[in-house]
Amino acid sequence: MVKISLMPREYKFYDLFEQGASNIVRASLKLKELVDNWQNVEALVAEITEIEHHGDSITHQVMAQLHRTFITPFDREDISLLAGSIDDVADFIQSAADAMLVYKVDRPKPHALELTDIIVKSAQEVEQAVTQLRRPGEYKHMLERCVEINRLENMADRVYRTALGGLFEGETDIRDVIKWREIYEHLESATDRCEDVADVLEGVALKNA
Amino acid sequence: MVKISLMPREYKFYDLFEQGASNIVRASLKLKELVDNWQNVEALVAEITEIEHHGDSITHQVMAQLHRTFITPFDREDISLLAGSIDDVADFIQSAADAMLVYKVDRPKPHALELTDIIVKSAQEVEQAVTQLRRPGEYKHMLERCVEINRLENMADRVYRTALGGLFEGETDIRDVIKWREIYEHLESATDRCEDVADVLEGVALKNA
Amino acid sequence: MVKISLMPREYKFYDLFEQGASNIVRASLKLKELVDNWQNVEALVAEITEIEHHGDSITHQVMAQLHRTFITPFDREDISLLAGSIDDVADFIQSAADAMLVYKVDRPKPHALELTDIIVKSAQEVEQAVTQLRRPGEYKHMLERCVEINRLENMADRVYRTALGGLFEGETDIRDVIKWREIYEHLESATDRCEDVADVLEGVALKNA
Repeated sequence: MVKISLMPREYKFYDLFEQGASNIVRASLKLKELVDNWQNVEALVAEITEIEHHGDSITHQVMAQLHRTFITPFDREDISLLAGSIDDVADFIQSAADAMLVYKVDRPKPHALELTDIIVKSAQEVEQAVTQLRRPGEYKHMLERCVEINRLENMADRVYRTALGGLFEGETDIRDVIKWREIYEHLESATDRCEDVADVLEGVALKNA
Repeated sequence: MVKISLMPREYKFYDLFEQGASNIVRASLKLKELVDNWQNVEALVAEITEIEHHGDSITHQVMAQLHRTFITPFDREDISLLAGSIDDVADFIQSAADAMLVYKVDRPKPHALELTDIIVKSAQEVEQAVTQLRRPGEYKHMLERCVEINRLENMADRVYRTALGGLFEGETDIRDVIKWREIYEHLESATDRCEDVADVLEGVALKNA
Repeated sequence: MVKISLMPREYKFYDLFEQGASNIVRASLKLKELVDNWQNVEALVAEITEIEHHGDSITHQVMAQLHRTFITPFDREDISLLAGSIDDVADFIQSAADAMLVYKVDRPKPHALELTDIIVKSAQEVEQAVTQLRRPGEYKHMLERCVEINRLENMADRVYRTALGGLFEGETDIRDVIKWREIYEHLESATDRCEDVADVLEGVALKNA
């Protein structure tokens, strides 16, 4: 009797995307732990860096799988874009955490905490949306998650602009202005890339409607 | 009697590109109004932001049309690149204007006015070039526009470098150095992206020669 | 008797990639001459800019060849990515050199010398790896070069982070902080793009294994 695999190769892509999405949720929660408590900074940044490297290896697996697979569950280009933007979210979370360490900043500023909360929520929405990717019947719910990710990105954008403007108005030391400007930029970029994930998911839903 | 549409689907792409190109001309003229008069700043930046959002919706229409269309008037990749770079021009114009508002700068510096004049000219050249895209017989003229866009980008680059160098030489307050460095960067990037538009147009002309 | 060309069109791609790779080695050696001696600054930056322009023309030739060629030696997308990332290496070397000139910096800082040495080594590894691209039998050696390029990029990253942190700790004038932060960024990006080259080469080896 011939045993037939019930798990075709394409399921592998969905599994990897879900792993990548869970990975950015983990990274965002570690970032929150870091900015909320501001203790064991070096150890926590090292953990975030490790999570980010794990994300890299997931992305590599997606790309290797893509090279091996002839028929893909959705457009090759979208698979590659989706893997890339999930990866980017983890990268910017790591860059923000690492800049805080490299620049030896004091306690994170309130706007950094606010942005981090938005990153956690966006990452969780991304995780939920990505889980629905393998069920076209759930695309309505997936698209609702995408709308929410867009809303969160707009919110992050407003916080970012307020934070930037505030940096130059207060009595902030000019070195801190330069440091925080960069950190805020990384934090805001993390939510931007969650929006890129949502854009790809919307495109996939549109093409397979 | 059956009525046959004389407007095949592919004409839609040219229409959308022309709308996108006109949109960046509008954005550039509003930017000029903003930096020349420096009045009603908040209202003008809001108008530029609205123009930029309109550009986003044009880009979305191009991408949606691309997903629906099997045979495209030129390479799918070039359609997507062209839509993306026209979008980017509007984004950088908006970022420059928005940074002036967020950073609450005083009157724009002379180099910002000079860069804005170049952006207006580049946007107008882009508009003319894009209009010729649907007429392969006009590609010679389209390529002349592309050469001019490249010349303008080189000019912007020289102004940008002079402006940057000057920022650090004068008596400029260090906070203003940081603010204007970013604003100049956005302005110069707007002309860079006009050059990206020209590069795509040159590629299309080359492939369809 | 009909003479048959023994040089099929696809060899042309390998030739162009090798020229591009040699070109970034030349750029990196000029950069080293610049930062080591800090003499004839304007003339040397002009030479680096010329080398960078030569790189642009090689990239244009690759893209033109790609448009003319129906069957390519490896994936069209990889050809375009490879040409783009080799081009980017030259761009960042030029940007670093040009920023030193525009900002009228004093003698380059020790970390800039260290980063430049890593760029020279990375460029040389890229040149060797690219030379092996036309010989699938040599892919094992090509992949060893890629591992080395990754190691050099990690090293550059550490130097970059140390340099950045140090800028804010010492007595460095705040204007110099801003200037050197940008220059370090360009230098680090040059090694990043060497890593992008390695990523494309690894992908090509994987697909043709």
